Amino acid sequence: MKLLKEKILKSGEIINPTTLKVDSFLNHQIDATIMMEMGKEFKKRFKEKKINKILTIEASGIAIGLAAAVAFDVPLVFAKKKKPTTMEGMYVETVHSFTKKVDYDICVSKEFLNSDDKILFVDDFLATGNAIIGIQKIVEQAGAELVGIGIAIEKGFQPGGNILRNEGVHLESLAIIDKMDLGKINFI
Amino acid sequence: MKLLKEKILKSGEIINPTTLKVDSFLNHQIDATIMMEMGKEFKKRFKEKKINKILTIEASGIAIGLAAAVAFDVPLVFAKKKKPTTMEGMYVETVHSFTKKVDYDICVSKEFLNSDDKILFVDDFLATGNAIIGIQKIVEQAGAELVGIGIAIEKGFQPGGNILRNEGVHLESLAIIDKMDLGKINFI
Repeated sequence: MKLLKEKILKSGEIINPTTLKVDSFLNHQIDATIMMEMGKEFKKRFKEKKINKILTIEASGIAIGLAAAVAFDVPLVFAKKKKPTTMEGMYVETVHSFTKKVDYDICVSKEFLNSDDKILFVDDFLATGNAIIGIQKIVEQAGAELVGIGIAIEKGFQPGGNILRNEGVHLESLAIIDKMDLGKINFI
Repeated sequence: MKLLKEKILKSGEIINPTTLKVDSFLNHQIDATIMMEMGKEFKKRFKEKKINKILTIEASGIAIGLAAAVAFDVPLVFAKKKKPTTMEGMYVETVHSFTKKVDYDICVSKEFLNSDDKILFVDDFLATGNAIIGIQKIVEQAGAELVGIGIAIEKGFQPGGNILRNEGVHLESLAIIDKMDLGKINFI
């Protein structure tokens, strides 16, 4: 997606060869126009699929999740990172964060995932794909179908994307970074 | 806002006299249509103000924040609840959560708040208003102007709303709950 790649080149900051800071438009300050355009782009790329629900993970997935939900005209469900006191009857899975080197739980209320749901999972970043393994298990617990995965920025030099493609998952990443080296970003 | 009040009556669950669960459309599953309509409603109610930035707090404020940012055609900044490792130069304030009975830090990068910003703060709920005190201090640190506060659901039986109105803050709540008693919700 040209608009996103241009914005990454203009405003992304390479912190180290594996960390890209996109706080100025994606996950601290949010460029609402780019966000909504990404939702529309997912709609284009998954137009053949009968998607009736968008799924994401709080907090950084919520904005892109809402953008997708608006484009598809379906509800958004966001997995919570800890079990709130007022919620029972949850699907829960443990995810290992490669970046933060900790385990955390993601959970979704059983009320909001059903066996007839056709789900598009969206997120801002894809690196190792650990969070998606948790999401796949939650969707499986619910007996629902994960029909696709839409990502804003895939780190092509980390294994998540290729693992998913090899599994036959319909994965669409709007920008795939091949390499971030010597202050330069290359896309695939 | 009629649409929101009807949805609260239809789908809100009273957990106890101070806790309303709106997980089915506002903060776990999100009704994208209602969310975007709330953004438009804020635009109507604050149309006289020259707002150039929407501010909210992760995670539950992000969706309504994006809806407002789209309606106003300005960027959204969301305060983070802990200091990420890759971010320096932050405005930080401590907030006491009445519901969870803990203190937490909210922080905003100095890059994204400037002295010429005219800010609308939006959030899903207003109860004691403790989070807003933290936001007021952060906006003050930045030398920016908090020109208004837009809330989806105000708990009118808790003090936050009246404290802010007595301070002269331009506060707009789309639904104000007077009382949640014996399984019945009354709006002001």
